[in-house]
Amino acid sequence: MSEPVTQPPAADPAAGRQDAAALDGRAAALDAQDPLAAVRDRFDLVTGEVYLDGNSLGPPTTRIMERLSDVVGREWGRMGIRSWDGSGWWTAPERIGDRIGALVGAAPGQVVVGDSTSVNVFKALVAAVRMAPDGRDEILVDAATFPTDGYIAESAARMTGCTLRAVPAGGIGAAAGERTAVALVNHVDYRSGRLHDLPAVTAALHAAGALAVWDLCHSAGALPVALDADGVDLAVGCTYKYLNGGPGSPAYLYVRGALQPRFDSPLPGWNSHADPFGMAPAYAPAEGALRGRVGTPEILSLLALDSALDAWDGVEVGDVRAKSLALTDFFLECVGALVPPGRVESVTPLAHAERGSQVSLRCQDAGEVMRALIARGVVGDHRRPDVLRFGFTPLYTRFADALHAARVLADILEGTP
Amino acid sequence: MSEPVTQPPAADPAAGRQDAAALDGRAAALDAQDPLAAVRDRFDLVTGEVYLDGNSLGPPTTRIMERLSDVVGREWGRMGIRSWDGSGWWTAPERIGDRIGALVGAAPGQVVVGDSTSVNVFKALVAAVRMAPDGRDEILVDAATFPTDGYIAESAARMTGCTLRAVPAGGIGAAAGERTAVALVNHVDYRSGRLHDLPAVTAALHAAGALAVWDLCHSAGALPVALDADGVDLAVGCTYKYLNGGPGSPAYLYVRGALQPRFDSPLPGWNSHADPFGMAPAYAPAEGALRGRVGTPEILSLLALDSALDAWDGVEVGDVRAKSLALTDFFLECVGALVPPGRVESVTPLAHAERGSQVSLRCQDAGEVMRALIARGVVGDHRRPDVLRFGFTPLYTRFADALHAARVLADILEGTP
Repeated sequence: MSEPVTQPPAADPAAGRQDAAALDGRAAALDAQDPLAAVRDRFDLVTGEVYLDGNSLGPPTTRIMERLSDVVGREWGRMGIRSWDGSGWWTAPERIGDRIGALVGAAPGQVVVGDSTSVNVFKALVAAVRMAPDGRDEILVDAATFPTDGYIAESAARMTGCTLRAVPAGGIGAAAGERTAVALVNHVDYRSGRLHDLPAVTAALHAAGALAVWDLCHSAGALPVALDADGVDLAVGCTYKYLNGGPGSPAYLYVRGALQPRFDSPLPGWNSHADPFGMAPAYAPAEGALRGRVGTPEILSLLALDSALDAWDGVEVGDVRAKSLALTDFFLECVGALVPPGRVESVTPLAHAERGSQVSLRCQDAGEVMRALIARGVVGDHRRPDVLRFGFTPLYTRFADALHAARVLADILEGTP
Repeated sequence: MSEPVTQPPAADPAAGRQDAAALDGRAAALDAQDPLAAVRDRFDLVTGEVYLDGNSLGPPTTRIMERLSDVVGREWGRMGIRSWDGSGWWTAPERIGDRIGALVGAAPGQVVVGDSTSVNVFKALVAAVRMAPDGRDEILVDAATFPTDGYIAESAARMTGCTLRAVPAGGIGAAAGERTAVALVNHVDYRSGRLHDLPAVTAALHAAGALAVWDLCHSAGALPVALDADGVDLAVGCTYKYLNGGPGSPAYLYVRGALQPRFDSPLPGWNSHADPFGMAPAYAPAEGALRGRVGTPEILSLLALDSALDAWDGVEVGDVRAKSLALTDFFLECVGALVPPGRVESVTPLAHAERGSQVSLRCQDAGEVMRALIARGVVGDHRRPDVLRFGFTPLYTRFADALHAARVLADILEGTP
């Protein structure tokens, strides 16, 4: 694992009820000693609401409108077309990519922002197959993957003459064989919140001669990722969850420096050309990560993301991980103490080494329970058929929020048959 | 042609100089009788500047910041994740697609907004090849195409086992043979401003048994397009030129209704799934144009576009075309009257049936001349090596602007050896 396991396992939810007042004291003490407490002020949050859906859509920062006003009013409105150079629009995908790179252990020049995660999965998988030695014609995909990765992997396999095989993420390294070109794995499972062992799986894939493509949607910004150190080949991720870039903010693509000269994109749009304004009829790829660019980037969404990343100024990802584990431990403890026994079961592993930054609880009538939670100001989400998802986002979530959410959940489950 | 040719050909720029005062009177009279004159007030324009680069990046409307404030502050900030349903974010690509459809002659349900033009070219070409009868394995591309279309067409050909052949747009219908699956053609040439005969080329392609994919980047919003009436199969276009959606605002894809059941996307992301929140491991495409969706749309850029389209309220595309031709006629006339003989030559056809909404002038030292124009507040652009491009966007460009631009150009060319 990238992070040490230093804390004891969380309390088992079935361990029984505790004194409610003691939990209030615990929450207050944990918030008082939280080194990230002040970062919460950088976000525009709804008063009285506990927002535990930042693993789906992070909230806006307080400064985003100021930036958008400047982008629309001055850069677009006054400078117009000249902003492509004069306001740095043209190079924003690489510049913002480097900012994200700093959060996922990538040295500059390896991350480029743009397009959706799905489109980047397609680029990464096709490029990986093209890098593979002759005779390797199999793509492996994490069997529990977020669906779009699987759909796109199927298309990439079809279009490159490969076969596709779904394998549980934990065993995907062992499953790779001499025909395997590449495996696509989710770092954290979107449904269960399970964290997979990126260094071990990557090493096993490499030992089998296969490339590793990681989907970081549910890990970047929530826990340490060490792409360079762990030898990851390619990676993709979205920016609207733990990076708070805004609804549908552009995704990113990591291409390890050593592989960039061999990165042969299936979407060689003019933005990735060595001389884009030469308007040459023949394609000649640029050097570096910008080889992963395609068409003109959606600048308003892209620069809103740039502004959102300011929330990370001075924040250490190690502190984020420590708080994330403490928050999810405490939430599980509160759920164990307050919720009627037997009503929920954690799908998320208790072991820190296997836990992302969310808690997924299996619960009867989960859809109805989530609607009741939201009606009472505790916003998580529901994944069919029976999972309540609660995302814990250390930049703005308090321990008191975790306790409050558990308390409201307990109230709702007490009140239903 | 979609539009009647009712006006006489423009004056030849070489025809000699006219009385400058007479031109002022003509401009004033033309502006006074312009039915679109009041639409200019819907745009946030730079005082004292003549912006003739709307064929590259349209200016913001005056109401866009109000909409973005609401999207960020209320929809994202207050409603958060609930806005995917509650604020109509999820269905925005189809809803805004229908608004664009109304401007390009497409009945509702056939246009979907999202991704870049390049990515949409890839979807359209691969899907077209997959629709073609067995044995058709050739893609034709407009030889003078905007480069990205050619690069992407090459990738689509490579990934579908097709060959790619470049043919001048005017002859592409005649060049199609029994092996031709599809042809990709630009409606208006980005460099010369030449308008191609969409109905005739489409009919010729169909007669050869091939599908027609049109790139509308330089025609949508500038002149009438009749996709349904002319039997176009697929089309793509950007929204940041004549539709004023903002820098890099999302592109669109048209899929003719009758072809939608056979539209087999190479980018089958979860947004195009029949039941996206079912999270099924197997892909099952949705019905309709939304089959062309891929991943999560960039909502801020998408809704800025939605707001920008309000500028079209009550505007008839026929009036836009009439004014566009009158503006480019008048600009050519002013250039002919004012610019020293022999210094510029129009690359844009004089015949209305062959003219888009820009004027491209071949000129020695074009890069230097354009820098001088911009320094004096006349903003066009330069295409290497020797072309000055002036875009005439009828929603906000005045006849007085056309005269002023010609006058400044004449001054600059008088002053240089």
